[in-house]
Amino acid sequence: MAKELKELTKRSDNYSQWYNDLVVKADLAEASAVRGCMVIKPYGYAIWEKIQRQLDDMFKETGHVNAYFPLLIPKSFLSREAEHVEGFAKECAVVTHYRLKNAADGSGVVVDPAARLEEEFVIRPTSETIIWNTYKNWIQSYRDLPILCNQWANVFRWEMRTRLFLRTAEFLWQEGHTAHATREEAEEEAKKMLNVYADFAENFMAVPVVKGVKSANERFAGALDTYTIEAMMQDGKALQSGTSHFLGQNFAKAFDVQFVNKNNEMEYVWATSWGVSTRLMGALIMTHSDDNGLVLPPKLAPFQVVIIPIYKNEEQLNAINDKVAGITAKLKALGISVKYDNADNKRPGFKFADYELRGVPVRLVMGARDLENNTVEVMRRDTLSKETVTCDNIETYVKDLLDAIQANIFKKAYDFREAHTITVDTYEEFKEKIEEGGFILAHWDGTTETEELIKEETKATIRCIPLDGDKTPGKCMVTGKPSACRVVFARSY
Amino acid sequence: MAKELKELTKRSDNYSQWYNDLVVKADLAEASAVRGCMVIKPYGYAIWEKIQRQLDDMFKETGHVNAYFPLLIPKSFLSREAEHVEGFAKECAVVTHYRLKNAADGSGVVVDPAARLEEEFVIRPTSETIIWNTYKNWIQSYRDLPILCNQWANVFRWEMRTRLFLRTAEFLWQEGHTAHATREEAEEEAKKMLNVYADFAENFMAVPVVKGVKSANERFAGALDTYTIEAMMQDGKALQSGTSHFLGQNFAKAFDVQFVNKNNEMEYVWATSWGVSTRLMGALIMTHSDDNGLVLPPKLAPFQVVIIPIYKNEEQLNAINDKVAGITAKLKALGISVKYDNADNKRPGFKFADYELRGVPVRLVMGARDLENNTVEVMRRDTLSKETVTCDNIETYVKDLLDAIQANIFKKAYDFREAHTITVDTYEEFKEKIEEGGFILAHWDGTTETEELIKEETKATIRCIPLDGDKTPGKCMVTGKPSACRVVFARSY
Repeated sequence: MAKELKELTKRSDNYSQWYNDLVVKADLAEASAVRGCMVIKPYGYAIWEKIQRQLDDMFKETGHVNAYFPLLIPKSFLSREAEHVEGFAKECAVVTHYRLKNAADGSGVVVDPAARLEEEFVIRPTSETIIWNTYKNWIQSYRDLPILCNQWANVFRWEMRTRLFLRTAEFLWQEGHTAHATREEAEEEAKKMLNVYADFAENFMAVPVVKGVKSANERFAGALDTYTIEAMMQDGKALQSGTSHFLGQNFAKAFDVQFVNKNNEMEYVWATSWGVSTRLMGALIMTHSDDNGLVLPPKLAPFQVVIIPIYKNEEQLNAINDKVAGITAKLKALGISVKYDNADNKRPGFKFADYELRGVPVRLVMGARDLENNTVEVMRRDTLSKETVTCDNIETYVKDLLDAIQANIFKKAYDFREAHTITVDTYEEFKEKIEEGGFILAHWDGTTETEELIKEETKATIRCIPLDGDKTPGKCMVTGKPSACRVVFARSY
Repeated sequence: MAKELKELTKRSDNYSQWYNDLVVKADLAEASAVRGCMVIKPYGYAIWEKIQRQLDDMFKETGHVNAYFPLLIPKSFLSREAEHVEGFAKECAVVTHYRLKNAADGSGVVVDPAARLEEEFVIRPTSETIIWNTYKNWIQSYRDLPILCNQWANVFRWEMRTRLFLRTAEFLWQEGHTAHATREEAEEEAKKMLNVYADFAENFMAVPVVKGVKSANERFAGALDTYTIEAMMQDGKALQSGTSHFLGQNFAKAFDVQFVNKNNEMEYVWATSWGVSTRLMGALIMTHSDDNGLVLPPKLAPFQVVIIPIYKNEEQLNAINDKVAGITAKLKALGISVKYDNADNKRPGFKFADYELRGVPVRLVMGARDLENNTVEVMRRDTLSKETVTCDNIETYVKDLLDAIQANIFKKAYDFREAHTITVDTYEEFKEKIEEGGFILAHWDGTTETEELIKEETKATIRCIPLDGDKTPGKCMVTGKPSACRVVFARSY
């Protein structure tokens, strides 16, 4: 694919433009002919596959299984849960016909009016309704519980303002939908999956997150509690990166899903749902990348090491090829993924810039001198620092370096977040400080009115009420009313 | 999930009903609230995941990468390729609106007439059009070629007569879409992927297939050549199990995708597409299963071995648990997947029947006597034969047994197909023999007229012109005109 390695916009010049440039230039994704929908390009999709594989393993380790439910949802299903329909009806893609026919004037195809559906369908914006309609047939007794299903799927929400990965009309995600015999078990499940998400974000994406619970105003439509992980981007804005919902008995009641409990009484089933989406790609990109391009955590990079030869003639190339074959074999034996790029239609300088743009964690360069000395030049993408090292035990050197990079970019992001998280006690100071970006820990009286006033005046929202950390009560910075603990405010994506 | 282990319909009584019963009772899939769409249940989805994983590895080994393209296709895109629109327009789900609103009478939600789309979208029935519209921007020069992309996705074709896995309105599949600089390279790619499908079918699904090319009449809408793998089900009907299309320059012309070739001339790009779907699940089920339920090839079984304890008291159970832990560890060390079912709420007889129904390849049963004797009872699902063997080296015994089962069910299916494949020279004999099911090798004059006459009079279609095998010319059994070689006729799914 032809691509010019034009300069990226600098983050300090225009962060938003830098992000858009980077997503396109690093071949991650691009806009499609369908408004608001993206094409995820092979390099971007390869990262998403790594994310999927790892999360899927973690879901299975915690006892979950995958299943698949229909793309289309009967319109009437949405209305069964009052808050749910309120939350999603305004952005639904609606299927009204099941056939096209040739236009009378031969100009192509038109919708066949004779093929109108009796009841319209919406393309799933999320699947609680179709799934709970299905669970009704699966659950009779407490012996049928729990049900711990997950689905990898595409969903559709007709958003008007879209951005690649961050907010698209169609996106890819996983949605877990579990059914339980008791309230306690469902609440525990919702928290357990929040912890799985936080573990994944921190230990694989190298993205530090704040775990918390949403205010009533920011809850998922139909949930009693929404747990969230919130990450901080380099512009100081928050990105909600994953949510886990305790749904109570709302969907069981909407679809009449009852079971016989251990005391032989009929009871409505308790539910959770939880999801992360291709939005994680946005978090990954914005947390670590720099003005040269992507910086990928080694654990999620499509390939962790790229090797580039520098040679003047074919004889040198052949000798380097041989040497590199040995190095590659040793790296692969340690489970390290390697790409050797000896294509002769691009110059080394072009390759250097290209793999920096694509965020390959480690670059090895071998030239004639290296060959003589049994050395190789190693560059780490996170710091761009270079070192010439011996080829003896290069595999353990690289393995340690990959671990060091994974740890370093997490620490860098963590330090950044800590440096941009402040405590504020007055609304005056809040209004001033929020302009600088970052998270602000402040007291709030717990009311939606105050929350909305703050949002209107400052564009900041409550990202979450943190689960961990300081629980000292205080007074709301706006109204002076009692506050149970500080909450996290930020502007957000 | 509550489930009664009712008797399956016998194959000899009603093959079609046996299939439907089996799919539901073995917890593979079920009908959903959306007409023609299925729910793929966890056990069925676990098999699909094995299929996906293996195919995906094979695609990657042959140089392909995954990507993702939009679910929705602008209506006008379909019309760009004349045969393509003719083939798909009649079964398209059409999206006409992007919003619902509250009904005036408070009875739920209705389509918001103010939110009508300027141009309607169809849910992809296949993605050639949206992908070639995208490739237009990716291809300028021969240096940008080949493009070897695959997509795992859901597609929608509004079929009126549906059957679980075999023909559903929504189904899951993969669709490869490749772009090449020369006709030869594209033709080679189409054949290569046919071979990948055949390899997968025979060596993983244990389903023998005939590789061939479709007659003009049975080609994919928009293809110059459609290659196919055809399998024979136990009722003698053919099941088309995968297709690979050489698309020529049709889609490149429809979307104006030209490139500068090595001679510095503008040329249209050459294309292929290829796909297999959840229909493979139908082939898997119908090829091997019996009146007791599923028979799964070990290579695709969600778990290959189930271990069931038989005990009279907790002391015995504890001792068996310990012994089984050792066996399980040894099996897992050889890469064998194991489930130990010591749940005490179901009796052994129920478990036996249940795991037979689910087609688990090998069952181990351990009782008090076995414990004393250091033995275990081994049953293989394909033949239902039992043997009591020593626990010493049980892991290699089981490993060899799994290989033997994989080989045996392939051979059984292969022998069945050979026994039901005959050569016929007269149309009279053809009409008689086609009633018995199976494949008939007969001469045909190569015309669509003759093909359609045969179909109308016998319900048999040309499954393919085989790539391998006898190429002796002859005379058409119907018209007496010259025939290049025998072709495969059968009734089909």
